[in-house]
Amino acid sequence: MEIEVAQEKLARALNVVSRVAVGAKSTLPILSNVMIKVDSGKVSLTTTNLDMAVVDYVPVINAKDGVITVPARLLAEFVQNLPRGEKITISTDGVKVKTSAGKYSSTINGAIADDFPELPEINEEKAVIYKMGVDEFKAGLSQVVIAASGDTTRPSLTGVYFNTADESLFVAATDGYRLAERKFIEKVKSEVAAIVPTSSLQEVLRSIPEEADEIEILFDDNQVRFRAAEIEVTSKLIDGTFPDYRQLIPKDNEVKIEVDRNELNRIVKIAALFARESNRAITCETDAEKKVFSVSSISNEVGENKSEIETEVEKTGKVKLDSRFLIDALNALTEEKVKIEFALSSAPVLVTNAKSKDYRHIIMPLNV
Amino acid sequence: MEIEVAQEKLARALNVVSRVAVGAKSTLPILSNVMIKVDSGKVSLTTTNLDMAVVDYVPVINAKDGVITVPARLLAEFVQNLPRGEKITISTDGVKVKTSAGKYSSTINGAIADDFPELPEINEEKAVIYKMGVDEFKAGLSQVVIAASGDTTRPSLTGVYFNTADESLFVAATDGYRLAERKFIEKVKSEVAAIVPTSSLQEVLRSIPEEADEIEILFDDNQVRFRAAEIEVTSKLIDGTFPDYRQLIPKDNEVKIEVDRNELNRIVKIAALFARESNRAITCETDAEKKVFSVSSISNEVGENKSEIETEVEKTGKVKLDSRFLIDALNALTEEKVKIEFALSSAPVLVTNAKSKDYRHIIMPLNV
Repeated sequence: MEIEVAQEKLARALNVVSRVAVGAKSTLPILSNVMIKVDSGKVSLTTTNLDMAVVDYVPVINAKDGVITVPARLLAEFVQNLPRGEKITISTDGVKVKTSAGKYSSTINGAIADDFPELPEINEEKAVIYKMGVDEFKAGLSQVVIAASGDTTRPSLTGVYFNTADESLFVAATDGYRLAERKFIEKVKSEVAAIVPTSSLQEVLRSIPEEADEIEILFDDNQVRFRAAEIEVTSKLIDGTFPDYRQLIPKDNEVKIEVDRNELNRIVKIAALFARESNRAITCETDAEKKVFSVSSISNEVGENKSEIETEVEKTGKVKLDSRFLIDALNALTEEKVKIEFALSSAPVLVTNAKSKDYRHIIMPLNV
Repeated sequence: MEIEVAQEKLARALNVVSRVAVGAKSTLPILSNVMIKVDSGKVSLTTTNLDMAVVDYVPVINAKDGVITVPARLLAEFVQNLPRGEKITISTDGVKVKTSAGKYSSTINGAIADDFPELPEINEEKAVIYKMGVDEFKAGLSQVVIAASGDTTRPSLTGVYFNTADESLFVAATDGYRLAERKFIEKVKSEVAAIVPTSSLQEVLRSIPEEADEIEILFDDNQVRFRAAEIEVTSKLIDGTFPDYRQLIPKDNEVKIEVDRNELNRIVKIAALFARESNRAITCETDAEKKVFSVSSISNEVGENKSEIETEVEKTGKVKLDSRFLIDALNALTEEKVKIEFALSSAPVLVTNAKSKDYRHIIMPLNV
């Protein structure tokens, strides 16, 4: 195998794939390697952690067929440190991988590709396929992943649920205490109900090349593939059932207010300071007489605080929330004005942009 | 006590002093507090960790005399979250500290100032005093602190040695493996030989207000005070003897080269990648025949590499260095060209800017 490639092209590709490679101290050391493969002159770099794989197709100057694996991070760092514009030659001598570029040369001990794990494969012809703009995909997903659980004892909550309803594609995530849902694509023709691991999605978000405009999402029964420009991330799906979440979204809360998002964020952050020793609990209150919305918190040890926002209030009410969840929700919203709706019972609190209906965030109240 | 102060002035001052305050879980909880003192209308904020104290004098709108202490980080974060331009009122009701600003109010549990530790005091009339430009102070110190030791079993190496020689003030630091020395002020009249804790200096560097042009440094036998604009940092000195380092600086090394600093930095970083499993050891070589300077490293496990720079070479030689130390030294240098001088014996290696003589960095070679 031999390739001749521009430094910046190789550096960019290695930077993407080397993140998925596992640390060298893994029980399966070859997972810390990148597989460099030249097949009919087409060069691919591949890494996998067994749950997912990322492939990056690199445009090269010259290539001779062959395949080898080599420590991914070492090669990535070596190439990143070479001068921009330098032409790099990588060639194999048995399992020794020789890299040279002008006055810089190295020999890295590689390993044969036979030991590299088989990659997850998708039958693309039978797969359900969606296409969407990269910007929308990135923005929408980052609004949702924040609500996913990190608790691996409930695997189905550690992913993002891609699902179709009313001819639209939605993504949703919940950790049991809060839930975020975003409408992704309207008027889709095929249906899907699949839980994609959050860790894989975060890798997708990081890997999408800047120049990519469109992303393709392909589902089969057990896997999903994301394809954007020259990268392809393929991941196992999470085997499990996602909660029937739509029934949890409150339809008609009694207390509704609309306030400036930045101002609300500010007073919630202030209240959070005093709530550190009381499970982050803050009290949100509306006062129909004074026409104010207030946020307060109290700690026996530290002290107490209260901040107010003047706004239209029709009904007086009160709810206790985890300040971190409310801050997360506010950070995910995008409009200048936001709506908060809660009930006088202990029903979930709904937090949304004032106008757009595409994103819904629900937070369970704390028991008083 | 009562003060009325602009949000941005109070936020800036609290930001400076709250960093020195100790975490709330200290055995002496009052060390996590800031002392707010109004004396004849002059307002000071003070924190201390017993080894050092920082005082910030805050310009206020109104003030009534009195003194209280209050959790520093909580107050700092509360004030930082208030809107810029807001006028803040802080007043005491016993040990309760009430803070209000427009629609935002809080009550924080404080503690009486009697329990606040006494601060290190300096007799300024008897002190040795130096004055210098802030930019030079910052730049010079950061070139030197990198060589200080973190090993508290040899306390005198954990500080920076302020010393006078040939009518100049120098700062120097060493961890026993490398040494950095910087000339600070020429033609000084009084002498000093004092070791200032690196931790205190780092606090000084962080605390100096942007608008300060000059810094004053005052030494007495046991303490040092740094004063810039409205801040004052006072620290204990380290009780101990600093090594007689000037005799270690090589005077006449046989091998001398001059190379581009960025280029050298690049090839040292590359060699460092392959030296991770071999104590970071890299080999620097000159070849008088080929007129090249090369840096190489080898690891049985990972592989090997070699990079070259063409340059004037008079004598062939070789020395093994810790790559991290050489990278640190190169980052501390400022000119485009740098000089490396080493001996054919195992004498220390001298690394300097090609022209300026103000900064000297010495690295002990590794035994081959």
